[in-house]
Amino acid sequence: MPRPTPYDRNLFSVFQPLQTRWADNDIYGHMNNVIHYALFDTAVNTWLVEQGLLDMHQGSQIGLVVETGCHYFAELAFPDKIEAGISIEHIGSSSVIYRVALFKQGQNTAAAQGRFVHVYVERQSRKPMPLPKNWTASLKTLLIEPQEGL
Amino acid sequence: MPRPTPYDRNLFSVFQPLQTRWADNDIYGHMNNVIHYALFDTAVNTWLVEQGLLDMHQGSQIGLVVETGCHYFAELAFPDKIEAGISIEHIGSSSVIYRVALFKQGQNTAAAQGRFVHVYVERQSRKPMPLPKNWTASLKTLLIEPQEGL
Amino acid sequence: MPRPTPYDRNLFSVFQPLQTRWADNDIYGHMNNVIHYALFDTAVNTWLVEQGLLDMHQGSQIGLVVETGCHYFAELAFPDKIEAGISIEHIGSSSVIYRVALFKQGQNTAAAQGRFVHVYVERQSRKPMPLPKNWTASLKTLLIEPQEGL
Amino acid sequence: MPRPTPYDRNLFSVFQPLQTRWADNDIYGHMNNVIHYALFDTAVNTWLVEQGLLDMHQGSQIGLVVETGCHYFAELAFPDKIEAGISIEHIGSSSVIYRVALFKQGQNTAAAQGRFVHVYVERQSRKPMPLPKNWTASLKTLLIEPQEGL
Repeated sequence: MPRPTPYDRNLFSVFQPLQTRWADNDIYGHMNNVIHYALFDTAVNTWLVEQGLLDMHQGSQIGLVVETGCHYFAELAFPDKIEAGISIEHIGSSSVIYRVALFKQGQNTAAAQGRFVHVYVERQSRKPMPLPKNWTASLKTLLIEPQEGL
Repeated sequence: MPRPTPYDRNLFSVFQPLQTRWADNDIYGHMNNVIHYALFDTAVNTWLVEQGLLDMHQGSQIGLVVETGCHYFAELAFPDKIEAGISIEHIGSSSVIYRVALFKQGQNTAAAQGRFVHVYVERQSRKPMPLPKNWTASLKTLLIEPQEGL
Repeated sequence: MPRPTPYDRNLFSVFQPLQTRWADNDIYGHMNNVIHYALFDTAVNTWLVEQGLLDMHQGSQIGLVVETGCHYFAELAFPDKIEAGISIEHIGSSSVIYRVALFKQGQNTAAAQGRFVHVYVERQSRKPMPLPKNWTASLKTLLIEPQEGL
Repeated sequence: MPRPTPYDRNLFSVFQPLQTRWADNDIYGHMNNVIHYALFDTAVNTWLVEQGLLDMHQGSQIGLVVETGCHYFAELAFPDKIEAGISIEHIGSSSVIYRVALFKQGQNTAAAQGRFVHVYVERQSRKPMPLPKNWTASLKTLLIEPQEGL
């Protein structure tokens, strides 16, 4: 599997400004590889909450993560300011494949990029349930062509 | 030891806007008590970096934490936006007692407040070293009267 | 407030073996001050679960943290193995003051020590509720004399 | 890309016992998807340290993460005890593709599995450097046939 090239900003539909924290830097002085996923998770869920789709406290429908992945191209580090790009590659009946990337503020090329796959399930049973129409309508606004190598 | 009352914003000298992350919420649906300290650490060190005092990568002088504490008054939760208040209660020859608090954005009363004590040491030996004059001058701008019960 | 001296193991009633993680080390190569609280929280709650007292998923009674504090004496770092000592200084009608400390495996003197104060509340209303008799009976087995300076 | 099936324990060369922490559980009451990567990172680096290969403080050669990925099959949650399986799919001149999985203690089928790709670089320049002979010899003991769908 060849290593992909870093994405440009124009492959993303929306951006979330994200902060770094002191403890994000590990012993090598840069943001630990795990933190990228904390930012992916935050970016996607913040967007879902802001759209009025996800109610993490009371909603009957919650998103469970079934797959994630990340390629790391350039170091990020506290106190960098970051912009997370989000778009959607595929909307299934109950699942969504998000494309996500982290850009150092003001840069055009991703420092890291990956995928984040949610399955939407009924909160109690944790069984997949079809996406409601208002979810699909909002999610479609993030759709973009799949890219090779992601 | 009686429980202190929550601080007002006017007891703080500077404020840092801070974000919450998805994983900050624990099983009880609110920000886990540990995260408050990650935000204290971030707020103080961000200020030190912005003042040009702390160079965490190359500086000969680094801040080690010798004491921390927090009282929790009101729940915070992702996706809340937070403002961290910082002031200084005491500047010693090589140590500083910071007063810190977390306010939900726009609120006047602290959701949590505490203390954060740094000793400034030489990076290699980890021995305390006197604060340089430019450090003391900057730090003094945050000095404020100590409050009972912190 | 004078700096306390590190505790000996004999001031603790029970011990929990705890692991460190790669990302616990921060840019200074040692365990970040925030992680100590993640370990306190884990040690106390693990004990409560093992005693059959706390059911974090379904129980009507949950523990909310209202105060924490820590003094740091010696560096800990991944991949150290740690033993967390736990004892109880005070049992109130609905609150418990835990004394906690982290020992590097096999050492007699605490690398860090602190307090961890839980108020037990009804899960839905988040109002304090009196400790049930079986809780009090178990908690009493950890009681120990308060120490000055904690 | 079809969803892979969970791995059996016999696809792994060594296992590391790992603990969960209170704060690993997110608002949905299970281990947040980010924590799996903290455990992958810990498992691989613990093995490298125990083999006497990696000296994270002083060694001239350090491992930077260039790619990670995870499929999630079953919930894990604090206070579960976990066993991380590690094997190696490919050893390049300066990079290693690790296969990693998390098993709930005593179970034969992975709750989550993924890949973790390290490039070994010179600490200061961060340029890839060839793996020393003693590294290659130790790493070869973990080699195993690649599996489709990882």
